[in-house]
Amino acid sequence: MPSSIPDIVISRLPIYLRALERLSQEGHEVTSSHELGKRLGISSAQIRKDLSHFGGFGKQGTGYKIAFLREQLRQVLKVEREWEVALVGAGDLGSAVARYKGFAERGFHIACVFDSSPEKVGRSIDKFSIQSIDQLPSIIQERGIRIAMIAVPAEHAQEVANTLVGAGVKAILNYAPINLSVPDDVHVQYIDPVLHLQRMTYYLT
Amino acid sequence: MPSSIPDIVISRLPIYLRALERLSQEGHEVTSSHELGKRLGISSAQIRKDLSHFGGFGKQGTGYKIAFLREQLRQVLKVEREWEVALVGAGDLGSAVARYKGFAERGFHIACVFDSSPEKVGRSIDKFSIQSIDQLPSIIQERGIRIAMIAVPAEHAQEVANTLVGAGVKAILNYAPINLSVPDDVHVQYIDPVLHLQRMTYYLT
Repeated sequence: MPSSIPDIVISRLPIYLRALERLSQEGHEVTSSHELGKRLGISSAQIRKDLSHFGGFGKQGTGYKIAFLREQLRQVLKVEREWEVALVGAGDLGSAVARYKGFAERGFHIACVFDSSPEKVGRSIDKFSIQSIDQLPSIIQERGIRIAMIAVPAEHAQEVANTLVGAGVKAILNYAPINLSVPDDVHVQYIDPVLHLQRMTYYLT
Repeated sequence: MPSSIPDIVISRLPIYLRALERLSQEGHEVTSSHELGKRLGISSAQIRKDLSHFGGFGKQGTGYKIAFLREQLRQVLKVEREWEVALVGAGDLGSAVARYKGFAERGFHIACVFDSSPEKVGRSIDKFSIQSIDQLPSIIQERGIRIAMIAVPAEHAQEVANTLVGAGVKAILNYAPINLSVPDDVHVQYIDPVLHLQRMTYYLT
């Protein structure tokens, strides 16, 4: 596999994977770049080009075998295994994240939940027992956790990110409405639904 | 104001606005494209170019007055007013969305919550009384609601989107893990945290 696939290509692969899983659930066994493109609003040429980075998953005219392409994409994205994820923040937002079933269903297992509030530590959110943030570095290092989600107030998010990075975390999903500064080898993605709403209001008349 | 600003520029404006609001909370009154760029990981040249689409918000060397730039961006994005939003789906995910305080704090007011399940209709999530999806078209039309959030299972999301579009909704924030087909004049944004995680695992070794 080539060592350097453009980031924009990688960012589209999970979207293809999700569409393939959907097609599979609907009982399809074969698809085409045309059908995928129609579902996703992406040109079929773009899809073929993106997938060509990883070798020949299918031929024009014969289509893609969904089960095969899906497994290949899962391997490329390294989601054929289950990942442990740490969650920091057990307030309203963190609790909602902890309760969201979509993570475990798709291979991301919340392994531990941390909070700094003495009132929260020791309590539970569903099956998760809330641990003190003081224990975060040792627990993350022991378990070899590389992925974390931040669901603390904006003013504490950078400090939490620094602690996570210090403990060896390399991928952060940040729910706090603030941009984070992290070293180059750490990846950050953001979830802020209000940003998405504000992107759309511009177009409303 | 020019009639056609590139979509990619519009997509960055909410990020600038969020950073300005943060700077303001921290007590700053003036900022620069350099400082904003450092905070956001975007080049200062890009920021100046983006903002130049909307006229002169500041001059190189003198910096931007935060309060002024913030108000200008709020007007451009049409978020200087409060927007009513309809929420469809009152399961685990929909309930979490309904309880999330970040919408109201930033000008998006959930005006009504719908579900198709007779067991849920009539119940409440916090202050929201769940209404039958059968009432959705008339309520949305009466109240002139243009924005909706979908938090139903993937297999029902397209049908819900069709109903929303039929009722006059022009902007949809879709939490269901599926791509939606909508007319060209309807905007859709997606929230799927698993996609963001899958974008990062590729880079983990």
